[in-house]
Amino acid sequence: MSQAKNDVSEKLMIDANAQPPASERIPIIARPFVSDRAKKTLDTVEKFVEEECVPADPVYVQQIGEGVASRFSSHPPVIEDLKKRAKELGLWNMFLPKNHFKEGAGFSNLEYGLMAEMLGKSRVASEATNCAAPDTGNMEVIAKYGTEQQKREWLTPLLEGKIRSAFLMTEPQVASSDATNIELRMQQEGNEWILNGQKWWSSGAGDPRCQIYIVMGKSDPSNPKPYAQQSVILVPASTPGITINRMLSVFGYDDAPHGHGHISFNNVRVPASNMVLGPGRGFEIIQGRLGPGRIHHAMRNIGSAEKALEWMIARMNDPTKKPFGKNLSEHGVMLERVARSRIEIDAARLMVLNAAIKIDSKDAKAALKEIAEAKVFVPKVMLDVVDKAIQAFGGAGVSQDTPLANMYAQGRTMRIVDGPDEVHLLQMGRNENRRGTALRKKLAWQKEATEQVARKYGIQKKDPLQLDRVSGKQSKL
Amino acid sequence: MSQAKNDVSEKLMIDANAQPPASERIPIIARPFVSDRAKKTLDTVEKFVEEECVPADPVYVQQIGEGVASRFSSHPPVIEDLKKRAKELGLWNMFLPKNHFKEGAGFSNLEYGLMAEMLGKSRVASEATNCAAPDTGNMEVIAKYGTEQQKREWLTPLLEGKIRSAFLMTEPQVASSDATNIELRMQQEGNEWILNGQKWWSSGAGDPRCQIYIVMGKSDPSNPKPYAQQSVILVPASTPGITINRMLSVFGYDDAPHGHGHISFNNVRVPASNMVLGPGRGFEIIQGRLGPGRIHHAMRNIGSAEKALEWMIARMNDPTKKPFGKNLSEHGVMLERVARSRIEIDAARLMVLNAAIKIDSKDAKAALKEIAEAKVFVPKVMLDVVDKAIQAFGGAGVSQDTPLANMYAQGRTMRIVDGPDEVHLLQMGRNENRRGTALRKKLAWQKEATEQVARKYGIQKKDPLQLDRVSGKQSKL
Amino acid sequence: MSQAKNDVSEKLMIDANAQPPASERIPIIARPFVSDRAKKTLDTVEKFVEEECVPADPVYVQQIGEGVASRFSSHPPVIEDLKKRAKELGLWNMFLPKNHFKEGAGFSNLEYGLMAEMLGKSRVASEATNCAAPDTGNMEVIAKYGTEQQKREWLTPLLEGKIRSAFLMTEPQVASSDATNIELRMQQEGNEWILNGQKWWSSGAGDPRCQIYIVMGKSDPSNPKPYAQQSVILVPASTPGITINRMLSVFGYDDAPHGHGHISFNNVRVPASNMVLGPGRGFEIIQGRLGPGRIHHAMRNIGSAEKALEWMIARMNDPTKKPFGKNLSEHGVMLERVARSRIEIDAARLMVLNAAIKIDSKDAKAALKEIAEAKVFVPKVMLDVVDKAIQAFGGAGVSQDTPLANMYAQGRTMRIVDGPDEVHLLQMGRNENRRGTALRKKLAWQKEATEQVARKYGIQKKDPLQLDRVSGKQSKL
Amino acid sequence: MSQAKNDVSEKLMIDANAQPPASERIPIIARPFVSDRAKKTLDTVEKFVEEECVPADPVYVQQIGEGVASRFSSHPPVIEDLKKRAKELGLWNMFLPKNHFKEGAGFSNLEYGLMAEMLGKSRVASEATNCAAPDTGNMEVIAKYGTEQQKREWLTPLLEGKIRSAFLMTEPQVASSDATNIELRMQQEGNEWILNGQKWWSSGAGDPRCQIYIVMGKSDPSNPKPYAQQSVILVPASTPGITINRMLSVFGYDDAPHGHGHISFNNVRVPASNMVLGPGRGFEIIQGRLGPGRIHHAMRNIGSAEKALEWMIARMNDPTKKPFGKNLSEHGVMLERVARSRIEIDAARLMVLNAAIKIDSKDAKAALKEIAEAKVFVPKVMLDVVDKAIQAFGGAGVSQDTPLANMYAQGRTMRIVDGPDEVHLLQMGRNENRRGTALRKKLAWQKEATEQVARKYGIQKKDPLQLDRVSGKQSKL
Repeated sequence: MSQAKNDVSEKLMIDANAQPPASERIPIIARPFVSDRAKKTLDTVEKFVEEECVPADPVYVQQIGEGVASRFSSHPPVIEDLKKRAKELGLWNMFLPKNHFKEGAGFSNLEYGLMAEMLGKSRVASEATNCAAPDTGNMEVIAKYGTEQQKREWLTPLLEGKIRSAFLMTEPQVASSDATNIELRMQQEGNEWILNGQKWWSSGAGDPRCQIYIVMGKSDPSNPKPYAQQSVILVPASTPGITINRMLSVFGYDDAPHGHGHISFNNVRVPASNMVLGPGRGFEIIQGRLGPGRIHHAMRNIGSAEKALEWMIARMNDPTKKPFGKNLSEHGVMLERVARSRIEIDAARLMVLNAAIKIDSKDAKAALKEIAEAKVFVPKVMLDVVDKAIQAFGGAGVSQDTPLANMYAQGRTMRIVDGPDEVHLLQMGRNENRRGTALRKKLAWQKEATEQVARKYGIQKKDPLQLDRVSGKQSKL
Repeated sequence: MSQAKNDVSEKLMIDANAQPPASERIPIIARPFVSDRAKKTLDTVEKFVEEECVPADPVYVQQIGEGVASRFSSHPPVIEDLKKRAKELGLWNMFLPKNHFKEGAGFSNLEYGLMAEMLGKSRVASEATNCAAPDTGNMEVIAKYGTEQQKREWLTPLLEGKIRSAFLMTEPQVASSDATNIELRMQQEGNEWILNGQKWWSSGAGDPRCQIYIVMGKSDPSNPKPYAQQSVILVPASTPGITINRMLSVFGYDDAPHGHGHISFNNVRVPASNMVLGPGRGFEIIQGRLGPGRIHHAMRNIGSAEKALEWMIARMNDPTKKPFGKNLSEHGVMLERVARSRIEIDAARLMVLNAAIKIDSKDAKAALKEIAEAKVFVPKVMLDVVDKAIQAFGGAGVSQDTPLANMYAQGRTMRIVDGPDEVHLLQMGRNENRRGTALRKKLAWQKEATEQVARKYGIQKKDPLQLDRVSGKQSKL
Repeated sequence: MSQAKNDVSEKLMIDANAQPPASERIPIIARPFVSDRAKKTLDTVEKFVEEECVPADPVYVQQIGEGVASRFSSHPPVIEDLKKRAKELGLWNMFLPKNHFKEGAGFSNLEYGLMAEMLGKSRVASEATNCAAPDTGNMEVIAKYGTEQQKREWLTPLLEGKIRSAFLMTEPQVASSDATNIELRMQQEGNEWILNGQKWWSSGAGDPRCQIYIVMGKSDPSNPKPYAQQSVILVPASTPGITINRMLSVFGYDDAPHGHGHISFNNVRVPASNMVLGPGRGFEIIQGRLGPGRIHHAMRNIGSAEKALEWMIARMNDPTKKPFGKNLSEHGVMLERVARSRIEIDAARLMVLNAAIKIDSKDAKAALKEIAEAKVFVPKVMLDVVDKAIQAFGGAGVSQDTPLANMYAQGRTMRIVDGPDEVHLLQMGRNENRRGTALRKKLAWQKEATEQVARKYGIQKKDPLQLDRVSGKQSKL
Repeated sequence: MSQAKNDVSEKLMIDANAQPPASERIPIIARPFVSDRAKKTLDTVEKFVEEECVPADPVYVQQIGEGVASRFSSHPPVIEDLKKRAKELGLWNMFLPKNHFKEGAGFSNLEYGLMAEMLGKSRVASEATNCAAPDTGNMEVIAKYGTEQQKREWLTPLLEGKIRSAFLMTEPQVASSDATNIELRMQQEGNEWILNGQKWWSSGAGDPRCQIYIVMGKSDPSNPKPYAQQSVILVPASTPGITINRMLSVFGYDDAPHGHGHISFNNVRVPASNMVLGPGRGFEIIQGRLGPGRIHHAMRNIGSAEKALEWMIARMNDPTKKPFGKNLSEHGVMLERVARSRIEIDAARLMVLNAAIKIDSKDAKAALKEIAEAKVFVPKVMLDVVDKAIQAFGGAGVSQDTPLANMYAQGRTMRIVDGPDEVHLLQMGRNENRRGTALRKKLAWQKEATEQVARKYGIQKKDPLQLDRVSGKQSKL
C-alpha cells in the first residue's frame, strides 16, 4: 500500500496543496540557520503528516471507544503502525537538540521547531514520531540529569517509544502557578522516600503505557531558601499507594487515553536511587525543562493555526455553501479575516523561530525573554485564527465535523499551562521596568541638552503655546 | 563643544540608557544579514539620534514660528547644523540600497531598516541624515528611472541635501486608494506637457526648499489598458500655473514647514524631457517606489513605539507621581501593558526585518506579501503602544509636554497613506484565497484516505456520536 | 426537607449572597415596566435557581450516565422532581407573553426576560420551569398558528411538561444561514405530505421524551417567490422513516440527553392536517418565532455571565490560592477585569431589556433592530466574561470543576445559531446605510449654510490653513 | 433670514435627515421618564443644532484667528449671535436639574442628557445654550454651596452667559488623579487667603471672558484627616499674582479661545468671604460636582459618535469615491463596521440614560457605580466609532475637512479627565470584589447542597470522569 499511496501523495503535494514544500516556505530570515539535512527531513515530516497522520486522526479517535474505564485503558492500534512507519522514514526523536544530546536525531531547536509546526497539524503525529509531550521534556530531564541506571531503566524505553511518561507537578489545592506552593510531601526513611499528597493535570497519566512519573515534591519544607525545598524523583506508575482518582476534561474533551489525571499518593515508597540530581534540586530541574518545551508547544500551535486557516479557506470556497447567493470567499469580511490571520500567524512564527535560535545559541536561560514572548503571543494568535475558522463553518465549526473546536480547547489551555499568561506578563513587565531609572536619567539628560541647544540659538520662548498673560492685563479685557 | 558633549554622552549611553548599544540588540535571527560595518554605523546613528537629534527636536519646533504663511516659509537653522554634523559622522543617504544603487552609503535594506528604527525616535533625524520621506523614494525614482540630465538637475542636489522634493499623486475629488482613478490631466503639445488638475496630501510641498515635484497624472485616458493611462513627470515647483492653495492638518498638527499641500495645476507647462521613463509608464514607477519606503516607514514607526515605551516606563518610575501612594510601576495593570507592548513591538520588528531581507534577496516585487503584512501590522502595534503611553501620562500625554500625541497622529496616518489597511487586507485575502481549490482537494483527499485507513482497521462506526436510532424504536420509549 | 432547607436558604440569600434580591437589582430605567407580581415572582425564581436548581446541576449530569446510546435515552429523575417543585412555587410557563397568549403565566417579555437571566445560572432551571428552548418557541408557534386539533395533541402536553419537542430547520449540505437554501423536500400525495431529506442541529431531538418535530421544508420549489416555497409541518418523532443518525458535539460536550441530532427523513408520511398555517407559509412562521427566543437566549446568557463573574470573584478571594504571596483579588489586573466585566454585562442587560420592551410594545417585527443588536452584542460580552473567569481559575477553569468551560461552549454557539453574527451585522449595516442619501443631503445643506453664515460675517479665508502660495513667489525663496 | 431659513430647515429635517425627530428616537425603555415638554424642547434643540450651530462651527473656527496671543484673546462674534438665538428659542441653562435647582430650565438629568447628545454634534452648541463645561459644573457649585453674595456676584452673570469660569484643580507636579496630592497652598492671613502654587488643565481659562476661577487648594496640610485638608475658594481672574504661563495643546489643537491653561499663583490674595462652604470642605464640593458633569460629557460624546457615524455613512455613499469600482457602501467590511458602531452607540446611550435616571431618583452619590460605568464605557465607544469613520475617509479623515480628527482628540481626553479609566476601574473592581466572601459562602453552600441531593438519589460516583484506578492494577496492563 505504501508505494501506491506515495504515488497518490505525490499528486497531493503538487496539485492539491498548491504551495511549495515546507522547506521552501521557511521565512527567509531564518534560512541561514537551517541545514540541508533539516530541510529534507522537514519535507518528509510534512508529507508524513499530511498523507498519513491527518487521515489517521479520526481512526485514532474511533479506536479509543466509549466509557471512562475503557477509554483510558485503550491503546489504538493505528498509533503503533504509524510509529513503525515514522521509524522507516527516519522521523524519530527529532526533538532532542543536537548541541546538548547525542541521543536525538541531530537537529537544532530551530530545525525541530519547523518540524513541530508540521506535527501540530495532526493529533497523532507527535506521538507517531516520538516527539509528544510530556515525554519529550521528560526524556530531556533524564538524559540531562539522570544516573546511568535511571537512563537504562527509563530513558532507553522512552527513546524507543515502548513506554510513556508523565510529569507530576501541579496540585489542586494550591496556586501552582507559583511552584513554591507545592505541597506533596517527600520524606526520607532509610533508603527510601515516602510520598504523600496529590497531583492533578498529570497529563499522559491516563495512558496504560504510561509507566513512569517524574514527580516534584517538597522534601525539605523548613529549608530557609524557598527554592531549595523541592526535589524531583522518578516514581514507577505501578508503585503501591498511587490512585488515579479521576481524569480531568478540557472543555468537553477527555483527551483519552492520554488524559489529565488527578492522582493521590498515599505512603508511596520509592528507592532513594530514583532521586534526580539530588534532594533540594527540584527547581533547577524544572527550570531547565520548560524552555524548549514551550517552543515545541508554540510551533505546534502555529501548525494548528495554519490548519485552521486551511479549513477556513476551503470552506469559503465550498460551492455548495452560498448564503445569499455568494460564496463566502466573495465576502470582503471573510477575506479580511483571512488576511489578518495570515499576518498574525507569520508574526508569531518569526517570534518563535527567533526564540529557538536564541536557545540554540546558548541555552534556554539566555532566551528567557524570547520564550516568554512566544509563550504569550502564540496561543492568542492561534485562538483568534481558530475562532474565525469556527465562525466560517457555523455549526460544523463547533462540532466533531471539523478539528476546530478541539483545537480551540487545546489552544485555550496553552494560556494556562506552564504558567498562565499573567505570570509571564508580570515577570516581563518587571524586567522591562528595570530600565526605569536609566530611562529617567536619559530623558532628563536630553531635556537639559535641549536647553543648551535652545540657548545656542537664542530661543526665548519655552513653549510653542507660551502666553505669559499676567492677571493685571486680563482685567481690562 | 562636541568633545565635551561626547564625554557626557559616553556616560549617557553607559549609565543611563541601561542597555547595550543597538548593534547588540539586533534580534539574533537577523544577525547573519548584518555586516560589521553596518553594526558600527548603527551604533553611531543611535548615538547621534539620542544625543543630538532628540534634544534638537523641541528647538526645531520653536524655530518654525507662528502663522500659516510664516510657518511654511521657515527654514529652522538647527536642521542645517545637524546635517553638517551627520555628514561629519558619515551618516548620509544610508537609505539607498547597495544592491541597486551606487550613490548611497552601501547598506542593504535590512541594515538601513535597523538604522531607520533609530531615526524614528526623533523628528529631525531623518532629514538630518538625508533619509527623510518623501525625498528617499523620490531619489530612488530618479536614480532608477531618470535620464542623465534629470539626475544632474535634480538627483544631485537631492543627494546633497540642498533641495527637497514632493510626490504628487493623491487627489481630493476621487478615491485615490485606487490609483486608476487619478484624473490630473496631462496633455502633450509640441515639446511640452500641459498639466491641469489638483493634488493633495502633497507632503513636503510646504517647505520653501521643496524645488521639485514628481507628479503622477493621466496622459492617455482612452487607453484600453487601465494601467497604461498614467505617466509620471518632473515638475519644478516654480513652474507658473501652480498654486499651493492650502495646507492640510493631521489631527491638529500642520507639520510645518514640511506640510501636506493641497495644490492646483492650471495650464502648467513642463518640457517633454521631464517625463520619467516615458508616457504610460506611471504605474511601473510608483509600484517600484513603494516597497522600500514602506519598510522605512515601518521601521521608523517601531522606533517611535520603542520611544513611547521608554517614556511610559520613565513615567511609571517618576517618584513625584504616586496616585494612591504607589508608583505606577507598582501597578500590575501598568506592568502588563509594558509587557504586551514589548511583545508586540518585538513581533513587529521581526516582521519588518524579514520583509527587508526578502527585498534584499531580490526586489520589492518578490516581497509583496511580506511588505503588505508589515504595512498593516506595524502601525497598529505602534498606535497601541503610544496609546498606552498616553494613558500612563494622563493630561501630559495628549499635550505638547510629551512627543506622544504627535506620534499618535503620525502613526494614525500610516494606516491610510500608501493605501489604507483595507486595500492591503483585501489583496492579501484574495491572494491567500487562491489556495481555495487546492485546499478543498487536499481535504477531500484526506477524508478519502481516512476511510481507507478505517476500513483497514475494520472500523464500522462512522462517528463517535453515532446513534442510528430508528423512529420505530423511539416510539416505545 | 423543604422547610429546613428554606431556613438555611434564608440565611443564604441574606448573609451569603450579599446583595439585595433580584427585584431590587432591576436597572432603574426598566422598573416602570415591571409589575409588583413580576417582581415577587422574580425573587422566587432567583431563590429556586440558587437554592434548588444550581445544586441539582451536577446531579443531573451524573444521572445521564455513560455511552452514546445510554446517554441519549436517559431521563434524569432529578429533573422531574424539580418540575414538581417549580409548579408548587408557581414557576411554570413564564415565557409565554401575556399580551399574545392566554396560556402562559401572564408576564411580559420584559418581565420574563428578567426571570430568564436567573434561569441562565443553572443547567436545569429552564427545563424545570418549562421554559426551556426549543420548547418555548415551539409552543409559541403552535399556540399562535396551530389548529385546535394540533393544540390539543401537542400544545397541551408541552405546556404541561409531559413531552418535549424539536425544531428542525438547519441542513448540513447547504448554507442554512440563508433559509431559502433549505432543501428537505415536502411532496403532497393525497391527504399526506411525504418528506425526504436531512436535518441537523435538531436540538432536543436526543431526549427520549421528545415526541414532536416542527419541520421546515421545501414544499413548492418552483414558486417564483423565494419566500413562498417553504412550509412548516408537525412530524411526530415516531413516524416511520425517520432516523437519528448521530448526535453533534459542541466543544466536546454532547449535551445529552437533549443533544443536537443529525436526522434523516426517508419517505416520511405525515397527515396533511399537520401542516401549520398552510403550505408556503413557512417563512412567516419562523420569522415570528425567532424574536422572543433571541431575547430569552440573551437574558440566559447574561445570567451565565453573572454566574461566571461570581465564580471569578470567589476564586479571587480563595485564601488557599495565593500565587506569589497575594490573593488574586489584590492584583489590579484582576480587579480591572472584574470592573470591565461588570460594565459590559450591565450594558448588555440594558440592551436586551430595551428590546424586550419594544417587543412588548407591539411585536417582534417592530423590534427587529433591537433584537439583532442584542443577538450580536450579548454573546460577545458573555464569552469575554467567561473567558476571563476561566483564566482566573487556570486549569480548573477548563475542566469539569467549574461550569465555565461548558458555559463558554454554550455561549460560543450563540454567535452561530439563529443566524451567525455576520448575517445580522450585514443586515443591520444595510439598514443603517439606507440613510446614506439623506445624510449626504444634510451635510451638503449644512456646508452651504456655513457659506451663508461665513458671508454674513465677511469671512474671506476659506480654510484655517489657507496659503494661496503662487508658484511665481515660490521660486524666489 | 430666520423665517426663510426655517422653511429650508423644515425640508432638511424631513427630506434629508431621513429619520424621525429626536423625541421619537428616545429608546423605548427611557420614555416613561421624559415629559412632553422635554420632548418638545429636545426637538427644538436638535433643529437648532443641526440647522444653526453645525453650520456655524467652521465660522467660529475662522473667527479665532492666528497666533497664540491673538487666538486666546478672541471672542468670535458668531457665538454671541447664537446665544441670542438660543434664548429666543427658549434653549438656555437646560443643564440645571429641576429637582435640585430652581434657576434652570426645569429638566431632569435624563431629559437634559437627551439634549446634551444633540449639543454634542456641534462645537458651539453647548456654549450657545449656556450649557458648556466647565461653567455648568461651576454654576452648580455656586448655586448649591455659594453664599448669597457669591451668587449675586458670580452665579447671576454666569447664568446670563455674560462671563465664563474655570475650575482649577489639577496640578502638573503631582499625580492629580488622586486629589489628596494637590499642593496649591492656601494660607489664611487676617481676612484673606493667600494662594501660592500652580495649576494646569485649567480649561476655559484662555477665554478673555473667563472672569472667575474656582480653585481647589490645600488649606490645612497637617490635618490628620486626608480629606479635610482641602478647601475651595472663588478667585477673580483679575486678582494680582496670577499668570497664565501657557496653554496646553490636545493632539495639536489649542482649543482657543477656551483653551487649557497652565497657571501660576504667586501670593494671590483673596477675601475670606470667597471661601466656598468653609475651610476643609473641598472634597465635599468636588465630589458633588462631578456626577452630572460626567453624564453631560458622556451624552455629548454619544452625540459625537452619532455624528461620526453619519459622516461615515455619507462618505460610504459618495458617488465620486469608488475605489475598485464599488461604492464603499457595497463593501461588507464597511457595513459591518457601521453595524457594530450602531450596536455600541445604542448600548452606551442606554448606560448613560440609566445613570441619569439613577441620579434623578436621588443624587449623584446614589449613582456612583452607574456614573463610573458610563465614564469608562462611553469614550471607548466614541473613539472606536470615530476611528472607523476616519478610516472610511482616508486622508480627509485626519484633516480639517472633517470634524473627525478633532472629535477623536476630544474623545481621547475623556479617558483621562475627571480621573483616568484606571482609577475608576480599580474602584469598581474593588466594589465588586466586596462580594467575595459572600460569594464564597454561597458556592460552598451550593456544593454542600449538591452532595445532599446526590445522596438523596443514591449517586455514588463523584465525578463524571471518575476512574479510581489503583496502581496495583495498572502494573498488569
